[in-house]
Amino acid sequence: MSTEIAPPPSGYVQPVVDVPALTGLLDGEYAAVRDLVRTNLTTYASVLDDAEELGLDEYRERVRTLVVEMAATGQTGMGFPEEYGGGGSVGASIAAFETLAFGDLSVLVKVGVQFGLFGGAILQLGTRRHHDAYLPDLITGKLMGCFAMTETGHGSNVQALGTVATYDADSREFVLTTGDDQARKDYIGNAARHAELAVVFAQLEVGGTSHGVHAFVVPVRIDGEVAPGVRIEDDGRKMGLNGVDNGRIWFDGVRVPREALLDKFADVTPEGVYESAIENPDRRFFTMLGTLVQGRVSVGGGAINAAKVALAIATKYAERRRQFKADSDAQEQVLLDYGLHQRRLLPLLARTYALHFAQDVVRTQLHEVFSGIKDDEQSRRELESRAAGTKALGTWHATRVIQECREACGGAGYLAVNRFAALKADSDIFTTFEGDNHVLLQLVAKGLLTGYASEFGDMDQLDMVRFVTGLAVETVIEKTSAHKLLERVRDLLPGGDEWDQEAGLLDSEYHLAMLRFREEHMLAGAARRLKRGMDGKASPGAVFSQVQDHVIAVADAHVERLVLEAFVDKVRALPDGDNKVALGLLCDLFALTTIESDRAWFMEHGRLSAQRSKAISREVNDLCRKVRPLAADLVDAWGIPPEMLRAPDLVG
Amino acid sequence: MSTEIAPPPSGYVQPVVDVPALTGLLDGEYAAVRDLVRTNLTTYASVLDDAEELGLDEYRERVRTLVVEMAATGQTGMGFPEEYGGGGSVGASIAAFETLAFGDLSVLVKVGVQFGLFGGAILQLGTRRHHDAYLPDLITGKLMGCFAMTETGHGSNVQALGTVATYDADSREFVLTTGDDQARKDYIGNAARHAELAVVFAQLEVGGTSHGVHAFVVPVRIDGEVAPGVRIEDDGRKMGLNGVDNGRIWFDGVRVPREALLDKFADVTPEGVYESAIENPDRRFFTMLGTLVQGRVSVGGGAINAAKVALAIATKYAERRRQFKADSDAQEQVLLDYGLHQRRLLPLLARTYALHFAQDVVRTQLHEVFSGIKDDEQSRRELESRAAGTKALGTWHATRVIQECREACGGAGYLAVNRFAALKADSDIFTTFEGDNHVLLQLVAKGLLTGYASEFGDMDQLDMVRFVTGLAVETVIEKTSAHKLLERVRDLLPGGDEWDQEAGLLDSEYHLAMLRFREEHMLAGAARRLKRGMDGKASPGAVFSQVQDHVIAVADAHVERLVLEAFVDKVRALPDGDNKVALGLLCDLFALTTIESDRAWFMEHGRLSAQRSKAISREVNDLCRKVRPLAADLVDAWGIPPEMLRAPDLVG
Repeated sequence: MSTEIAPPPSGYVQPVVDVPALTGLLDGEYAAVRDLVRTNLTTYASVLDDAEELGLDEYRERVRTLVVEMAATGQTGMGFPEEYGGGGSVGASIAAFETLAFGDLSVLVKVGVQFGLFGGAILQLGTRRHHDAYLPDLITGKLMGCFAMTETGHGSNVQALGTVATYDADSREFVLTTGDDQARKDYIGNAARHAELAVVFAQLEVGGTSHGVHAFVVPVRIDGEVAPGVRIEDDGRKMGLNGVDNGRIWFDGVRVPREALLDKFADVTPEGVYESAIENPDRRFFTMLGTLVQGRVSVGGGAINAAKVALAIATKYAERRRQFKADSDAQEQVLLDYGLHQRRLLPLLARTYALHFAQDVVRTQLHEVFSGIKDDEQSRRELESRAAGTKALGTWHATRVIQECREACGGAGYLAVNRFAALKADSDIFTTFEGDNHVLLQLVAKGLLTGYASEFGDMDQLDMVRFVTGLAVETVIEKTSAHKLLERVRDLLPGGDEWDQEAGLLDSEYHLAMLRFREEHMLAGAARRLKRGMDGKASPGAVFSQVQDHVIAVADAHVERLVLEAFVDKVRALPDGDNKVALGLLCDLFALTTIESDRAWFMEHGRLSAQRSKAISREVNDLCRKVRPLAADLVDAWGIPPEMLRAPDLVG
Repeated sequence: MSTEIAPPPSGYVQPVVDVPALTGLLDGEYAAVRDLVRTNLTTYASVLDDAEELGLDEYRERVRTLVVEMAATGQTGMGFPEEYGGGGSVGASIAAFETLAFGDLSVLVKVGVQFGLFGGAILQLGTRRHHDAYLPDLITGKLMGCFAMTETGHGSNVQALGTVATYDADSREFVLTTGDDQARKDYIGNAARHAELAVVFAQLEVGGTSHGVHAFVVPVRIDGEVAPGVRIEDDGRKMGLNGVDNGRIWFDGVRVPREALLDKFADVTPEGVYESAIENPDRRFFTMLGTLVQGRVSVGGGAINAAKVALAIATKYAERRRQFKADSDAQEQVLLDYGLHQRRLLPLLARTYALHFAQDVVRTQLHEVFSGIKDDEQSRRELESRAAGTKALGTWHATRVIQECREACGGAGYLAVNRFAALKADSDIFTTFEGDNHVLLQLVAKGLLTGYASEFGDMDQLDMVRFVTGLAVETVIEKTSAHKLLERVRDLLPGGDEWDQEAGLLDSEYHLAMLRFREEHMLAGAARRLKRGMDGKASPGAVFSQVQDHVIAVADAHVERLVLEAFVDKVRALPDGDNKVALGLLCDLFALTTIESDRAWFMEHGRLSAQRSKAISREVNDLCRKVRPLAADLVDAWGIPPEMLRAPDLVG
């Protein structure tokens, strides 16, 4: 707020963005896949009108039809093995999903439910017999299914699900039973209307012993009728995503054959002997869950692209909408020439670019792990952590961007014909489905605090507290991955302990050092507080509760550091030229607004003087002024099909 | 984030909230009015289901019918003179409106359009002939009308409206004409279906001279048919508020008699001579606008109460929903016992209370000004400023609270049956209608920067820049109202220049001093930057653009100071007892979270050491733990009819 009026930048030459080249850079290796999806989006653009105009039933049917038709183009099956009609590339499948998020989000989520959740569970948790039986028809959309994990009583803590599957050795069947209403499956996409099969997660009981949660393939509809013993209720209208038929499912002694158990990680012999290569039941459960990480990578990437749609509309609107005269001349000033409007939109634009490149990294990691290119235990853990963190930051970002952009478009932004209504309502659930964002950040923090110890995957929050308090603080710090690169906290600052007070504000090394320092310092502090709490004889639960906001902050700091590293790496690797200059401005803007928004923390911890803090705010304003003339090109480079902007009152 | 685990508070006795007494305090002098509305809300509770289930047309008709039925109970006409069938109390009318915001927000906005905007314009801008002609039927809802100010091209800058009303002295009529499509009236509530009359704002031209924007009563429907020369288009579905029929209106040479001009502030003689007691056309326009301030007071109060509904649901849910075990015992922990969950909800609870008491102040000021109790020029200006500021902070608060509460209720919060969908979609427009929040804060800042100079009402942003740069910075500071109470900046700190480093963190004087210091310092800084920019020969527009975020921050700091003062005054006036203790905790929590969220600024400006900043965060956590056991009672005290919570999956 103490920003002074900067002199016009001297010696600065405004870059000219090469839009097609930048689109190529953003699309990357999956450009062809993305273009296929862009074509499909344009072909089926009328679904955006249908979403507004059709009744619930018709809209659901329309979305189903459209998903099946898209499936026929190969767009939705890219992640499945080629032998079953898939595309054989996990990375391509994520890229396709991300691009689909430019369009109607019910279509996106229906695709996610059918091919990601349902198909993914069959593929990852099942074995050949399941693949042979289901994948061919599932990939074409002929066989619709649902993913029945969440229950009314348990969404985040799925290890505590209430549905039970008891093995009956006499009949060689599993008997599935919903206990009370808290154990009914709830919010299940595809359940209310379209699913024939459900992958049901239930507590497996064999011979009176519980073996934890396992997945079973259960027919829920036969020839369109609800199967005997199954009860289904429609979840009805939702805030958004009304093209997806969510519902509740109860099981009343439903019997399925022994082969219905998805048996990649555990099986029950015909005689009723439980067998698994993974002995520890917690680890077994988290290993199963870990194979489903693709869902989180998908949602994070989808959210980032939904944010792009909102930003593209708001930026184009701000380039043409005039309001109030700026000077005495006749014409009113366009919104984007106002300093405040730049402050509202351009840092969000920069962060969207940053998250795009961070998503590239996590998509690549996913592809490498699931294609067996880099499939060790450590890589899987890092992938799970990064997927959780990128999903949390990406989806919160989308919520924030869509809200800010709607407000920046005033009353016109409120009309249903101008996409914001649908964007806002449909994307709202992203922050809490596929893992509640706060719970996901706790997962990230757990990995950091335990240094991805081999046991880490199996720990709940209390185990984590006990584990951390069993270590010396130094050990915790040593175990962090960042630390392995950087010998001591002081070494985070490449020019020595005072260097950060003098470094150039536009030096990426400075930005990285600041975010690394913050992460390490917060991590050590959280570990110290956990230990101190336990030393004080408090219960692990009470200790965790009191340190919880600190733990979440550690995770947030960690993920922001990863995002910045992804952006910096990308810019550095570019050949010299105007696009590099433009992305460099955005990268600086992202880094400095990130530091600025947490500048209180940096001041509290001696890494930022009051003067320097004010200088950062001035620099941010200056960067906004430099990015402003590039803004239209920067949103055009996302390659959003014009039909998807669907905002006749805003972008013409 | 450096918060250490606090020892259990010693000597602290947890208060027991007397819920009925607290409800009485909150309802205040308008308890009977509020209870009438509560009864009506309960009687018509089924409209919440209708909103979800009915089609667009039926829902609009349902809302119309309901509004007319509510009008018959006297609820909606309280602000009109008794001689016309009204209640004769502006304050009561606002209290009724606020309470109505617990229910369906389409009903609320329909009431606002009919009785606040349309009725308010007839009452405030018209004279006896208009009152006699329209008020009796308007108050019963028999005569429906609309308020046609906003145009597609102009929402914020309404002085630049494009519709023209030309006086034809021969026929003694005004001829209304929409120029191009940018001048069509847009987003006008009641226009698409129900309005018979419109109060139309248009540029008045008499004998070739333009006299600025004036208001005219224009029939837009006759016997249910659109009037000749009028064209109306439906705005169609909106993000929310679909029970209100918004539309667009074009006028093609529509003739209305001379008496159609609402002539309280200006008239045209039959011969075509323009007459007004207010010579300056800008001042005339802003005087007219000023009489409509009630709309902003209403929306602000409504938004605060909509936020209460969301908080009540989320708090009740967090009291019963269990997730993850906190300790090794059998039961999972309720959400509200998690430190993070407390941090998410309880500061919002405290801010809601703070805004409630701030709303009490602005409602009282409105009542006094419009009842002639305190109707001087200065009081009117302060009212306009306070109404603008409270509306901006109240509506942003509602958007934030509803989003946070939805996320805190997970998937169930996404189902339409559980109120969040409607709350979120319906309230979204609050931040930009009845004045865009950023534009409103600029209005507040303009008042501060010009010390409510007599010319201030007439200035646009450029005049303001020129005015401020014509003054010495000291003069600007001298002119601020806060300064009149407190001789010099240093005197803001009651214990001397260093006192704030040692003052008790729970001392209200400390909280007030911090917020006062921030406001004065920011104000002086903004004035200095404006002057420096103009001295540097930049154009006023460029200077304003560069200082705009600072100007907005000044306004925000000013309004937060007013909100805190309202809360502190309220607590201090209470008799000793548990309710005073409980409200004192909330007041401290509001004050410290307000300081905490801007602690970077306080550190940058030498008013907060790093150590003290961390201590404030610790204190906030401690206050959250103290408020936690009171949370259920504190939301119950709002007296929201249980039917309005309508969240069967969340609150049972």
